[in-house]
Amino acid sequence: MTDTTHTGTGTRTGAAQDRVRPLLRTRQVREFTDQPIAPADVDALADVARWSGSSSNEQPWRFIVIRDAGILRRLAETCQPQTRPLATATAAIAIVLPDEKERAVSRAYDEGRAAERVLVAASMLDLGGGVSWIISDARAAVREILGIPADRFVRTIIALGHPTEGARRPKSAPGQARLPREQVVFEERWPA
Amino acid sequence: MTDTTHTGTGTRTGAAQDRVRPLLRTRQVREFTDQPIAPADVDALADVARWSGSSSNEQPWRFIVIRDAGILRRLAETCQPQTRPLATATAAIAIVLPDEKERAVSRAYDEGRAAERVLVAASMLDLGGGVSWIISDARAAVREILGIPADRFVRTIIALGHPTEGARRPKSAPGQARLPREQVVFEERWPA
Repeated sequence: MTDTTHTGTGTRTGAAQDRVRPLLRTRQVREFTDQPIAPADVDALADVARWSGSSSNEQPWRFIVIRDAGILRRLAETCQPQTRPLATATAAIAIVLPDEKERAVSRAYDEGRAAERVLVAASMLDLGGGVSWIISDARAAVREILGIPADRFVRTIIALGHPTEGARRPKSAPGQARLPREQVVFEERWPA
Repeated sequence: MTDTTHTGTGTRTGAAQDRVRPLLRTRQVREFTDQPIAPADVDALADVARWSGSSSNEQPWRFIVIRDAGILRRLAETCQPQTRPLATATAAIAIVLPDEKERAVSRAYDEGRAAERVLVAASMLDLGGGVSWIISDARAAVREILGIPADRFVRTIIALGHPTEGARRPKSAPGQARLPREQVVFEERWPA
């Protein structure tokens, strides 16, 4: 995708943008081919998850790496349409968190950090990842399928696999998928 | 850092791990030299933030890029020790979010995703980033300094800069900074 954004001074930031390209091109993938992910790639993704940063390095999470097609398909049925990517995923990583109401915001922040690392890592490995956000009503079903203890829960399952050709294509015209820079990025202070 | 983790089968995942290395080595940096960040690098970091994924692509955030040393130092004083990295940062990105109690968890999740992308991008540019988490009590001061409207707030300010030699060094022995893999990553289901 070509990003036509200009900098504040009107010049392009080509070299720097090239270096962070994996982050600019990472997008959600929701449909996968039946080609399995190489075991080494799954391991690398699990390690990226494990090495994510968390508040005070508390590492509140546990990760379940799922490759069993039967389990993936059962998970896909728990929470449509959010879990649709799991219908074709060849692997997935579920993020298991302690169920602590009083720390819900901080835990969600750390959860987002870990999920994002896995998505970026999948992109770096020429794979795709898509976050399935499990709504409250579906969490009991997911807990049952994965055998999660009562004091923990799963909200994020990252579907993983080789993207289909269609899923690789951007859904928006170049530069249209995000608000224009001048509406989102301000300098020094909130604009007067 | 050498990660001595083995895979489930006892083999190393060298090639895949090399490809995701920027994600395995990204860590918080809290002390910076006085060398400024190249403007193109700041622009690239702002674009990475802008291109982060969010729930339903709502892009709830606005980002303030701060380079003014006076503002950075004032922010550093708002919420010690969390804001300590801002005392030496040569730039920072503040994430401004709508103040919506009923969506606090979902917003925090997206905020974590954006913060993580910026940290990873900084690492890819051979820079460092450190998240300053602004606690509730300090948010009025930050709002005042940055001119944030009453219906929005800042919880995350990412301090940015060139890491000092000390800040580049891992604080833990190799492999010690995270729980061992067998305690964190499970296969297919929660362990019986």
